[in-house]
Amino acid sequence: MSRGDDTRLAVLEHAFSLASQVGLDGLTIGRLADDLELSKSGLFGHFQSKEALQVQVLRHAADKFVDAVLRPALKAPRGEARLRQLFERWLDWPRMVPQPGGCIFVAAATELDDKPGPARDVLVELQRDWLEVLANAVRTAIGVGDLHASADPEQFAQDVYGIMLGCHHASRLLRDPKAVQRARVAFEAALTAARAGKPGRTRAH
Amino acid sequence: MSRGDDTRLAVLEHAFSLASQVGLDGLTIGRLADDLELSKSGLFGHFQSKEALQVQVLRHAADKFVDAVLRPALKAPRGEARLRQLFERWLDWPRMVPQPGGCIFVAAATELDDKPGPARDVLVELQRDWLEVLANAVRTAIGVGDLHASADPEQFAQDVYGIMLGCHHASRLLRDPKAVQRARVAFEAALTAARAGKPGRTRAH
Repeated sequence: MSRGDDTRLAVLEHAFSLASQVGLDGLTIGRLADDLELSKSGLFGHFQSKEALQVQVLRHAADKFVDAVLRPALKAPRGEARLRQLFERWLDWPRMVPQPGGCIFVAAATELDDKPGPARDVLVELQRDWLEVLANAVRTAIGVGDLHASADPEQFAQDVYGIMLGCHHASRLLRDPKAVQRARVAFEAALTAARAGKPGRTRAH
Repeated sequence: MSRGDDTRLAVLEHAFSLASQVGLDGLTIGRLADDLELSKSGLFGHFQSKEALQVQVLRHAADKFVDAVLRPALKAPRGEARLRQLFERWLDWPRMVPQPGGCIFVAAATELDDKPGPARDVLVELQRDWLEVLANAVRTAIGVGDLHASADPEQFAQDVYGIMLGCHHASRLLRDPKAVQRARVAFEAALTAARAGKPGRTRAH
């Protein structure tokens, strides 16, 4: 790896941690140059623009998410075990891969939802991929007989991500000590309903 | 109402709409003065500081939320009807009270969760009140026999707010046309489970 690559990686690491606290819009090239004692012109050489930097920080975060959450979870046996791993690893990932301000994607979602541009496009692609991973894990769980054939994978994916977002809100903003415990109760209820093929969790006709 | 009050209200109205799109941090007194063709010094006279402005925008938003969501919903009969009204009015409130960037409280939650100060304190107070309204509506629904005595009001409140946040994410960021329909399915499933006293939606022991 060249010295330029080392620098680029060091900047992305710092920007990733910073973005979890101050948002992607807080990532100015001037601030990063100051924090890391690098020249602004050198940083411009690496990233060209603030928007290009935001895109690369999101891609960098996605690589970390694959390593910390997706790859290990997809090693779990197909079915409920895999869904549980996806859920538990998501809950834990701001600690496994330190994000002092909580999940970078959750913060970016409300920051970018009204800002058309390349950073929003990348975030949408990454978040669709994540919901698709959840939906695919449901399809597999149906295939191996863990969940009922009538369970709706896209419904389940939105429901479970909602449980995660509700947990993030209650724990990060409200500092509610019961947030994680309640999220686990809700996740188990969603699994139980999908196992039994309960109305309401099944495909809407 | 004095002319000063008129000006103050006009600024708050504009700031409220703007904050839904650019976040509370985007509300600079300079920008508001430019947008409204008012003097910066006059605006400073009304709001003293950016932080005081943020606090007043949040309180202004809360007044609108009471008028558009809480007061009408609390007129519905106690029980499931009231819970349904709270849910439906929440879904609709960024249209009833135009917020071009979606619910101002959802955007503020991830923006302020890592920023200690008066604006965060006010938001926490308002969001706790909102979850408490949902929990109280569950308590009332148990009281009138609509929901099972074992339903857990705080669990239900976090679950339902999670359904709302999942819907906000899927509709605003991902522009998923099925987001609202799925949120309704999830809400009905939560009600059905709370009606039957299903494990998982009941108080954790």
